[in-house]
Amino acid sequence: MHSVRPRPRVVVVGGGFAGIQVARGLGGADVDVTVVDQHNFHTFQPLLYQVATAGLEPADVAYPIRTIFRRSDNVSFRHGRVESIDQASRRVVLTSGARLDYDHLVLATGATAEFFGVAGAAERSLPLYTLADARHLRNHLLLTLELRDAEPQRFAPGVTFVVVGAGPTGVETAGAVMELLDVCVRRDRLNIDPELSRVVLVDLGTRVLPVFPPSASQYAARVLERRRVELRLGVSVVEVRGDGVSLSDGTQIEAAAVIWAAGVSARGTLADAVAHAPGPQGRVRVRPDCSVEGEQGIWAIGDAAAVLSGKGDSVCPQLAPVAIQSGRHCAQQILNTLSGAPTQPFRYRDKGIMATIGRRAAVAKAAKGPVVRGTLGWLAWLFLHLCYLVGFRNRVRVLINWAWRYLDWPSGPRLIVADAETED
Amino acid sequence: MHSVRPRPRVVVVGGGFAGIQVARGLGGADVDVTVVDQHNFHTFQPLLYQVATAGLEPADVAYPIRTIFRRSDNVSFRHGRVESIDQASRRVVLTSGARLDYDHLVLATGATAEFFGVAGAAERSLPLYTLADARHLRNHLLLTLELRDAEPQRFAPGVTFVVVGAGPTGVETAGAVMELLDVCVRRDRLNIDPELSRVVLVDLGTRVLPVFPPSASQYAARVLERRRVELRLGVSVVEVRGDGVSLSDGTQIEAAAVIWAAGVSARGTLADAVAHAPGPQGRVRVRPDCSVEGEQGIWAIGDAAAVLSGKGDSVCPQLAPVAIQSGRHCAQQILNTLSGAPTQPFRYRDKGIMATIGRRAAVAKAAKGPVVRGTLGWLAWLFLHLCYLVGFRNRVRVLINWAWRYLDWPSGPRLIVADAETED
Repeated sequence: MHSVRPRPRVVVVGGGFAGIQVARGLGGADVDVTVVDQHNFHTFQPLLYQVATAGLEPADVAYPIRTIFRRSDNVSFRHGRVESIDQASRRVVLTSGARLDYDHLVLATGATAEFFGVAGAAERSLPLYTLADARHLRNHLLLTLELRDAEPQRFAPGVTFVVVGAGPTGVETAGAVMELLDVCVRRDRLNIDPELSRVVLVDLGTRVLPVFPPSASQYAARVLERRRVELRLGVSVVEVRGDGVSLSDGTQIEAAAVIWAAGVSARGTLADAVAHAPGPQGRVRVRPDCSVEGEQGIWAIGDAAAVLSGKGDSVCPQLAPVAIQSGRHCAQQILNTLSGAPTQPFRYRDKGIMATIGRRAAVAKAAKGPVVRGTLGWLAWLFLHLCYLVGFRNRVRVLINWAWRYLDWPSGPRLIVADAETED
Repeated sequence: MHSVRPRPRVVVVGGGFAGIQVARGLGGADVDVTVVDQHNFHTFQPLLYQVATAGLEPADVAYPIRTIFRRSDNVSFRHGRVESIDQASRRVVLTSGARLDYDHLVLATGATAEFFGVAGAAERSLPLYTLADARHLRNHLLLTLELRDAEPQRFAPGVTFVVVGAGPTGVETAGAVMELLDVCVRRDRLNIDPELSRVVLVDLGTRVLPVFPPSASQYAARVLERRRVELRLGVSVVEVRGDGVSLSDGTQIEAAAVIWAAGVSARGTLADAVAHAPGPQGRVRVRPDCSVEGEQGIWAIGDAAAVLSGKGDSVCPQLAPVAIQSGRHCAQQILNTLSGAPTQPFRYRDKGIMATIGRRAAVAKAAKGPVVRGTLGWLAWLFLHLCYLVGFRNRVRVLINWAWRYLDWPSGPRLIVADAETED
């Protein structure tokens, strides 16, 4: 008998795109990996707006984390919430009081909605970053429509929804809310005047989808306007009130809901608490290899980190592909460190961007390719999103839901299922 | 021009099996029908236990009520809760203050769990009658298992669940909870000892499935015991405590959850409030034609009513087929009354009963046929339940979910999605 050196322990906080990729990259290696998350499921965030607009069900975009790792004996899942990190003794403390020792700690804690200090935004607007956000928004939208149908004498004959932020999330949500409104009025015969109903998309910038080439922005704006989404560009939201918003040009818009898709921030998150000097949007400053500045054995990736793109000093955008790639990179660097090899800097490979604007309309742009749009863009978007969905089962479910929605809109599961006001 | 006599107005309270059938039966007739329900969806109650045990998603067993009637111009849906009924002025008052005038009122308000005055049962046991109940129970079961996995030092190595009531709901739930436990331990590798874990099925009666012939009960008991469900028959629950139950024979069982499937009652419901002298289990006493005793133009059907079977004085059981058949009958009697024709007494046609005990095991008995059991019984059960599911879309979804669950259990969507503690 001889003493066995204990296996290094890696704790990954967060089961989003970034955290899952780290654990996958370490699956089968000579380390013990624990993924900690306050939810027992991984969320496919790019489709949350479809849950919010009743096109998909929560289970279509969520997948049990344990199931993802059921064939990796060295990866386990811990359902819990991290209270603090004891860097001196290399230990994660959960709110339950339980402790997890680590040799390497990965912060993949994501971000939260950024309200830019706009008055009333944090209290009264509806963000769309978590599955709980999506369910909450969906119930709010559907209950609003039911209420107006039931008591038309209490309300104006039309209904207005405001979406703040004209990036991909805002554009996708505005298009989907308009579709939901159309279906409820036209097929469910709700007592709401479609001619007097509006979806207003507000952004401080001068064009929608600013990360795309101008021609794609123009196309998206045309499709949105043809579908009667009203664009208010070059103005900002000054205040969110209980009954609508005030814009910087003095306009007041009465609205039944204000959906916040203006940006995300890591401020106030666990990653923020660990950082010595937080970077832009509260993201943790990391070295080129994704290790946290000023620390040893702590890594930060995905939306929580100011991941360096590998081109000059530029920081990556907070997008799913960055989370996935930085997660894979981080796993490899932990293995390098454990074997005594030097770490490598992360290099972001931009494969392109895409956004859908509703049924049969999307824009997609490969990194070095042309802009694809219309039905072809939409099919490309559909194909890629299905490929990325984690489990085969979810893919089949989502495909059926989409096919059905496409062929026969009214059967969509527009259920109002009571929801906790907050979920964490 | 000549004055037009206004169309008779029918208000149906409740969008369950009974209420839906009344509105269907009146679809296209020369009446205005309004279905009122506090939820905007119809629930397929026989499969709630599968939602509770994470085999199906809420959307699989729920269907928007508006969609059911989208081709019936004379049927509309009102999302709301009934506060009271003003019988003198023939008016339903909603909690929102809105009023609905009626010429005929149908009470299809269902029932709630009956706790028989057992101490602590109403406060601490988990019933299974509504979709909210099912989601609440599911989250409780999954969170219990997660907690025991995360903090084994706080708990005994095994876990026990108690199911009260050995009718079809109790038997189906007990079997499904055992399957859930097996999957979580075996496939998800939760830190729980399966040898020390138990599902205990308690009933005052001396056999399970007492509505079936004794041979079917014996078969069900054998299957349950082979699957390690422990039967405690001939004893009643005296108290439900926070940490388990006390039985009438003095036994104490420590349990992480007590599931209540012992019976239902209409006491405390709207139907109960209308009835002059409530019948058994608080159900409204009705005449043979399903009209409420002592009233004109008020009808009661389904679980809410003491529907007479048409054979002697016997009252129908509270089952889905009774709700469906009494709903259809009620629609016809309203039409008869409006046209001046005499009403007909209801006659219950018992087509048989069935219950599943888990994967590939069920008992089914046609009214005049033999008992079918085992895989064949299970396939019969599957076929009939799919046929009865309201919408085609739900059928496809459920079929896929079941097929998948059967082929590859661990992919089931065992998601814990935060839930309001109460939903009404």
